[in-house]
Amino acid sequence: MRELYIIKLGGSAITEKEKNRPRAKVGVIRRIAGEIAKARKKKQFSLVIVHGAGPFGHRLVAEHGIGDGIKTAKSAEGLAKTRQVVLELNRVVVCELIRAGVAAVSLQPGAFFVQKNKKVAGFDASVVKKWLNAHNSVVPVLFGDMVPDSELGASVLSGDVIAPVLARELSAKKLLLGSDVDGIYTKDPKLHGSAEKITEINSGNFASVVRGVGGSRAVDVTGGMRGKLFELRNNLRRAKCEAIVFNLNKKNSLYRLLVHGREEILAIGTRIKF
Amino acid sequence: MRELYIIKLGGSAITEKEKNRPRAKVGVIRRIAGEIAKARKKKQFSLVIVHGAGPFGHRLVAEHGIGDGIKTAKSAEGLAKTRQVVLELNRVVVCELIRAGVAAVSLQPGAFFVQKNKKVAGFDASVVKKWLNAHNSVVPVLFGDMVPDSELGASVLSGDVIAPVLARELSAKKLLLGSDVDGIYTKDPKLHGSAEKITEINSGNFASVVRGVGGSRAVDVTGGMRGKLFELRNNLRRAKCEAIVFNLNKKNSLYRLLVHGREEILAIGTRIKF
Repeated sequence: MRELYIIKLGGSAITEKEKNRPRAKVGVIRRIAGEIAKARKKKQFSLVIVHGAGPFGHRLVAEHGIGDGIKTAKSAEGLAKTRQVVLELNRVVVCELIRAGVAAVSLQPGAFFVQKNKKVAGFDASVVKKWLNAHNSVVPVLFGDMVPDSELGASVLSGDVIAPVLARELSAKKLLLGSDVDGIYTKDPKLHGSAEKITEINSGNFASVVRGVGGSRAVDVTGGMRGKLFELRNNLRRAKCEAIVFNLNKKNSLYRLLVHGREEILAIGTRIKF
Repeated sequence: MRELYIIKLGGSAITEKEKNRPRAKVGVIRRIAGEIAKARKKKQFSLVIVHGAGPFGHRLVAEHGIGDGIKTAKSAEGLAKTRQVVLELNRVVVCELIRAGVAAVSLQPGAFFVQKNKKVAGFDASVVKKWLNAHNSVVPVLFGDMVPDSELGASVLSGDVIAPVLARELSAKKLLLGSDVDGIYTKDPKLHGSAEKITEINSGNFASVVRGVGGSRAVDVTGGMRGKLFELRNNLRRAKCEAIVFNLNKKNSLYRLLVHGREEILAIGTRIKF
């Protein structure tokens, strides 16, 4: 099998998260789809895409009060609405990829992940593999979703959890984590002018990096940057995968990260390798 | 657990199949959603819905030449487009159910069914169970989809196959098969004025019924009425489930079948019990 790359498209980049509005940034998604299509013409690699739900999910989960379980018929309706709205964002992403010439197939995490008290309790990675094997050019597209939960009925499964878990289970080579900042900083760069970008994170500096990094400011039911870092550490500690945090809003960064090597990575984002 | 009913909404009733156009009949779907919501207020039962893809799937599968496997990048693109168009029909169905007050959750068969040479080779029924257990009011909604196929890359999995397989695996009590005819006839009622509706099918008359029934006339990659009957026999031969073939276009039939018993069933459609 060819090398597998996994791209996480952060909700902060592909939706109007800053306005907490469930609206897709279609122009941004179209440009990203174009960069992916261009990279796949330049270089051969297998690819899985995971996108966040941004305010598509977060706001609805908050509004319907379903962050801690499905206890009433009313909350089951909220669950139904939330899943459908998130699927609508997925539709935009998949359609733009198809339009760019990428054979993107939607895969609902709610159909093959199970959680227990908000933690992944099991999932069938073979489904993703089977789609990758259907044809070299097929690109499964997963997303932050609500999935069955043996304690809570259903719970939020963030794209930030899915991406590293998949990278581990499918032995990915690169995990590209795109958001709306240039990488991981010593402090929140949107609040502190003195924040500095960290070029590389490894087992040696992980603890000190985590102390500096705060949560993200906007409403986020899934834990902010600190949570993302722990997910990476927990899943990739023993893996050969390198993770790269980068800014999806900077044109061509994703393309360069997909086709080029380590030097570009250190220039463009933060490289994480345990 | 409460009694489980499974409803199959035929592509012939919910899409413009007769014109071979990939257009949802939103008015019909809305009425059906209303009947389901009304029945669930009247009587307690668990419910899974499976809908066909009608021309949404059939036409695209034919156009892209992907009925016999995904061999080229072009056919992978066709696969991607087909899955997304079918998902669009699913969106209409789920949204109308939610609008009627039903907590409908979309479940892509492509995320948990696997086929081998166009036949179901494995699937995880527990996912559907887990959603049913998430809350009493949750209604999983599946549909005819393209799923991974170990020989062909991917292949069509018809709603007519999914529904009886699920009925068997989940020990459903009733399987309601709605299409655009009143039941199973001795001949194709759209072609022969002398065709008579069969009230009941069982092991005794199955063979003679099958001889009389032809395939359906419109383009249908999934086998017509004869294929549906064999799927029922293969899956429900040893099950306690009764299947009912009925006309979804007749107002209130679905509601009556959901809340009433055997006499109504014999009056409204064809009852199949092995």
